[in-house]
Parts: sequence; C-alpha cells; structure tokens
Amino acid sequence: MEILQSIAENLRGIKDKKPLIHHITNYVTVNDCANMTLAIGASPVMADDIGEVEEMVSFAGSLVLNIGTLNSRTIESMLVAGKKARQMGIPIIFDPVGVGATKLRTGTAERIIREVCPSVIRGNMSEIKIIAGFQETIKGVDSVASAEDGEQVAQELSQKLAAVIAITGKRDIIAQGDRIVRIDNGHPMLSQVTGTGCMATSLIGCFCGAINDCFTGAAAGIMMMGLAGELAQHSLQAGEGIGTFRMRLFDAVSTLTPKMILEAGKINKG
Amino acid sequence: MEILQSIAENLRGIKDKKPLIHHITNYVTVNDCANMTLAIGASPVMADDIGEVEEMVSFAGSLVLNIGTLNSRTIESMLVAGKKARQMGIPIIFDPVGVGATKLRTGTAERIIREVCPSVIRGNMSEIKIIAGFQETIKGVDSVASAEDGEQVAQELSQKLAAVIAITGKRDIIAQGDRIVRIDNGHPMLSQVTGTGCMATSLIGCFCGAINDCFTGAAAGIMMMGLAGELAQHSLQAGEGIGTFRMRLFDAVSTLTPKMILEAGKINKG
Amino acid sequence: MEILQSIAENLRGIKDKKPLIHHITNYVTVNDCANMTLAIGASPVMADDIGEVEEMVSFAGSLVLNIGTLNSRTIESMLVAGKKARQMGIPIIFDPVGVGATKLRTGTAERIIREVCPSVIRGNMSEIKIIAGFQETIKGVDSVASAEDGEQVAQELSQKLAAVIAITGKRDIIAQGDRIVRIDNGHPMLSQVTGTGCMATSLIGCFCGAINDCFTGAAAGIMMMGLAGELAQHSLQAGEGIGTFRMRLFDAVSTLTPKMILEAGKINKG
Repeated sequence: MEILQSIAENLRGIKDKKPLIHHITNYVTVNDCANMTLAIGASPVMADDIGEVEEMVSFAGSLVLNIGTLNSRTIESMLVAGKKARQMGIPIIFDPVGVGATKLRTGTAERIIREVCPSVIRGNMSEIKIIAGFQETIKGVDSVASAEDGEQVAQELSQKLAAVIAITGKRDIIAQGDRIVRIDNGHPMLSQVTGTGCMATSLIGCFCGAINDCFTGAAAGIMMMGLAGELAQHSLQAGEGIGTFRMRLFDAVSTLTPKMILEAGKINKG
Repeated sequence: MEILQSIAENLRGIKDKKPLIHHITNYVTVNDCANMTLAIGASPVMADDIGEVEEMVSFAGSLVLNIGTLNSRTIESMLVAGKKARQMGIPIIFDPVGVGATKLRTGTAERIIREVCPSVIRGNMSEIKIIAGFQETIKGVDSVASAEDGEQVAQELSQKLAAVIAITGKRDIIAQGDRIVRIDNGHPMLSQVTGTGCMATSLIGCFCGAINDCFTGAAAGIMMMGLAGELAQHSLQAGEGIGTFRMRLFDAVSTLTPKMILEAGKINKG
Repeated sequence: MEILQSIAENLRGIKDKKPLIHHITNYVTVNDCANMTLAIGASPVMADDIGEVEEMVSFAGSLVLNIGTLNSRTIESMLVAGKKARQMGIPIIFDPVGVGATKLRTGTAERIIREVCPSVIRGNMSEIKIIAGFQETIKGVDSVASAEDGEQVAQELSQKLAAVIAITGKRDIIAQGDRIVRIDNGHPMLSQVTGTGCMATSLIGCFCGAINDCFTGAAAGIMMMGLAGELAQHSLQAGEGIGTFRMRLFDAVSTLTPKMILEAGKINKG
C-alpha cells in the first residue's frame, strides 16, 4: 500500500518541479514521448547532436535513451550523454528496443549498459531476457535465459547491473535488488498502438527526474501507462478503434489525479 | 468480383500471420505508417542503419522503401536492404515520394528501381509518369510521358519493370502485365492529411507480407485506405475537420471487417 | 482594424495559391507542421539533404528553418537552402528553438541570422532575448538583455536585423521597424502540447508564402494558432485533455473562416 501512496504523491511532485527530461530517442514515437512528458507535467527536450548532448543533459532531471531507430551517429551521442549523466548523478532510463533482433542492437545495448550503467532498464520479457543472457555469457547464459520466471530474471539482472529492471507485459514486474512489485493495470489494446512502451519509458523518466527513488519511479511510470490504457479503452464507443484509443491515452495521463491512482492502481509487493 | 473476395479474405490472413513489415521511410509520416501497420493487424519495424538493415529485413514479410525525406545515409541503407530482400524473395514496395522534384530524388528512384527491382511501385500520376519517363529515355520519353491515359502508362511500365504499378488518385489504377483493376473508393479529404499516400504504401506492404500475390496486395492496400477515407469522412460532425478525420482513419482501418470490404469495395476489372 | 481585415483576406489567398512551404525542421513535430500547413490550405515539403535543398527551395513560396533537433548534417543544409532562398527573394522564417540552451544552438542561430538573414524570426521571450543579446555583443549586451520590455526588444532587434520579430507568449508581439502589433488570442493549454510554437512558425510560413508582407504574415500565422487554441479548448468536454485538445487544433485551423477571424481576432496596433 505505501508504494501506491508514494506514487500518488509523486504525481504531484512532477507537476510542482516540472523536471526537464532529455530524450535521445527514435524518430517513430518521439512526438508521442514529448506529448506524454508534457501530459504528466514534466518538460521534454529532444537533442541528439554529439556537439550539444553533454551540455543539454547537464540541465536535465533525467535522461531517456531509446534505441528504436539507432544509428551510428546517435549511438555515440547516447554514450556521451549517458556518461555525463552518470558523472552528474542524473538518472538514466534505458529502453533497449528490439535488442536481440540485430547484432547492432545487441552490441549497442551491451555498450550502453557497460559504459553508461543505466539506473532503470525497461523492456518486454524477451528484451530483458536477451539482456540477462548477454550479461550471463561469463556465468553461463542458459540458466537465466531459459528461466520462464520473469521475476527471477528481473531480480538477478537487477542485482548484477545494480539497476532497476522493469519488465512490461500483461503483468508488469519491477525489481531492484531484492525489492519487487507487480503491476496489473493496463489493457491489451496498448500493444496495438506504436510507442506505448517508449511512452512508458518516458513516464518513468518523468518520475525519476522528480524523485530520488528509481524503483518507485519505474513502478509509477508503468502504472500511469497502464491506467491510461484502461481509461482510454473504457471511453471507447461503437466504431472507435485505435485512433481514438491513442488520443485518449494523452487525455488520460493529462487528467489523472492522485485520487484516481489510489482508487485504480493495482500493485502487489513481493 | 473474385478479387474483392480475395481482398476480404486476405484481411483475415494479415491478422492471422501478423507479418513483420520493415520500413525504411521518412521521418514526417513514420509514426502514421507504424500505427497503420498495427491497425490492420501486422507488425511494423523501422530500422535504417546500414549496420542492421540486412539482418532486420531477413525476418520481414515485406520491405517498404519510401524516399520522402531521403538522405545520403539512408539511400545506401535502402539499396542494401532492398538487395537483400530481393535475394531472399521478400516483396519490396517502393514509394517514390516527390520523384522529379529534384535530381537527388529522381536519381535515387532510378537507382532503387534498377538495383533493387521493387515488386510494387505506388505513386500519384505525376510520380509514375516521371518514372515511366526516365525508364523511357531509350525508347523515347515523349510517347509515354505525354500520354494522358494512366492505364496505358501503368501497364507499359509494369511490363517494362516486371513490377506491379499502382497509381493513386480519384480513380486508383493497379496494373501488372496485362492485368488491371481500377478502384473508386476514397475521399478528397485524404489529400488534406499528410502521409495518406505513405500509409497506403504501408498497407500494401502488409498485404504483400501476408499473401503471395502483389497485384492483389496492392489493390487491397489501396482499397483499405480508400474505405478508411470514406468511413472517416462519413463520421464527421459539425466543427470537425482534418484533425478528427485523421484520427478516424486509424479507427476505420482497425475496425474494418471482411464483410465491410465486400459491401463497400468498388473495384473494376479490366 | 485594417490589419485584421488583411489577415482574413489573406486566409483566402493561401487557399487560392496553395504555396509550397519548404521546411527543414525537427523530427519531433515535423508531422504536426506538415498537417498544419495542409490544414490552412498550403502544401508542405520536408527535405533536408544538402544534395537537394537548393533545388527544392527554388520551387517554394517560403522556407521554414527550425533548429529543434539540429545536427551537423542539417545545419549545413539549412545554411545552403537559406542562402538560395535569400538570393531568390523567397521569405525565410526562422524558429530558433532552444537558442541559449547550448553553444551549438546559439552558434547555429547566430550563423543562420548572419549568413541567411531571415525575413521573420519567431520565438518565445527568452529565445528572442538571447538573440537580442548576442547581436548586442558589440553595442553592449546588458541594456537590451536586461530590458523587461518585450516590445522594445522586438523593435530594436527588428531594426538591427531588418527582420520581422515575433515574440509569442500570453500576449504576442510582432514588430517590424517601427511597426508593432500585439495579439491577445490563445490559451494556456497551447503550452501543454509539443510543437505549438513550431506550428505557429509553419503557419507564418504559409502566409508569407502567399502574400508579399511578412509583417502581416507573421501576425496572421500567430493569430491562427491562437484562435485554434481558443476553439480547441472551448470544445473540450469532461474527461478530455491534451490529446483531444491537440487534435482539435487541426480541426480548428482547417475550418477557420475569414468571418471567424474578423469576429474573434484580438489585435492591437501600436
């Protein structure tokens, strides 16, 4: 219960502090990430030239790195910005989109994890298992990679990387060391709109940019996206589909209140 | 009639197979293309770094190449991905946005056509005439370029390039060799929203990724966009304009059924 | 009064002439800028490769330069396109997004202003003050940079740069030499959606591409965005937030009439 209360209170914290969230992200969902950041009450900035990312991140409350459309130019910007953020103690939220699909994605995720040490890594089960796997090359991949138990994967990876691990799916899992929570908000329609994962990562960035606890921040961001999915789906009328659903996600996040979080948040502590 | 039935059945096919549609496309309408791909039931991936496009396309059901915001980096990625797709027999759908406007666009379209041999080329009448023209430099440009008859242009170009040629406009024309169909769905408001051409190309990619007939796939994708325009326009109320219309395009594609296609599809065989 | 009438008439002018508006802009809000350009009745083209921007801009009614996600590649394209537009007498609208935040942004804005000589510069108060400041390094920064009076800043900067200066905020200020107008349309929700500044700049580009008076064009573009914000906010019902608001901005611009401008435009001549 206390974590739900903390999430509700931290929603107010974002609106009060309006943290700047520096994104180096993909060009598919970048507009959605910017609007989601504004919807929750934070302030987005997207900047990816290597000549300015260190300066830009130094003003930021958090840094969001997303490899959805990575390229050789922006990979270097992510590493430079990430190292600067790390030095300055600015939380780094990493979304390893599509890791495992290509060597470039896997290698880049590996470099970001090794060189930048993200504070939070958010992905779906298969992305997180890939990361658990390549981290395991020394200790033996198979044990973890074959584990069907997402909770165990999340906890072990969290301990290994000293990062919050957030796995989103039907049931979301957030782990940090031996702390773990599961979130049961959300709706299957969220997977029919591009960028809902990216937006969840941005919302994590907003919370982590306002509060000093990335575990709660990760749970909060993921819960907001889940609640938005429920509210958006609930609002649909005959003939309305993913276009209206998508628009209502922004309506939902911009009108969510602490009271609604306390009433509808489904979080389960381990 | 039989082609209309085939289109209706193939809509189910996409939803069953959920083909991965690899796009190398422009940054203006990329989000719309991803959401349209999801709306019809396929799965989009956007990846354009030369270091990963060959690997990525090898998992794909089809490859969509769109030169709307081409640049020297992504042109090379398109060629490399296209050649790989060609080798593997993966359908390639090419949208020559703005060909003829600049030497870079015309030269790039020419290279893609020569080096990649797209399975389907979709453009408006002026884009297709430009392509017919530069292909005609040997046989004499004027005859074809001056022809007002789009059907003749489409058929001749189709034979020359061994590709399906799709010309979208008030009446859409799809030709392959001596096969030809015309589609009379659609609404003029479609031209007041950016990316409806790009989205039609993505929808063609979705059908071609699920079925083994690019002629039917091209007709199907174009018809879906036309039906979406009709449904979206029909839903508008007083004071609603292109913002609402645009959102409803996604609603329409995500809620279209085979039955609606059979009832409202306007297709005319030659 | 006469300027309001002129704005209303020029809305018709855009729809008649359908000027092509060449944008070199950021990838966050580029889709919104394209759709806003279409909503008002003009025609957008986004092209940023240095190999085609000179050719492309030569067909354009105006050129919009926006440094929201500038990078080393597109900075050079902006300069080349801008110089070509300048030579040909094509109006250039410059949006110095985030100038002052990083050396790269400030240096790039300085280069664009010096080498391209924009016809209109639109920014918020802090962006325009930064520009007034660095332009003042010779004459003494402090006098202007410390001036709280936006109108004085706008007028002095306009005279110095021989450009229309447009400052958007609660009250918008547009100055050219000793001409000045203030606009009191708009709504605070406009600041909760990404890209409303960029879209205002695009709308200025649409007017400047259709008429031969960048002062009126700047006032007109800014007023359209303000009226759209008012109409969009007014349409909201319980539970609707920034998602619906954002969509309605496009509805509003696409349905605005000269009569509505004459009735609701709040403009005040100095």
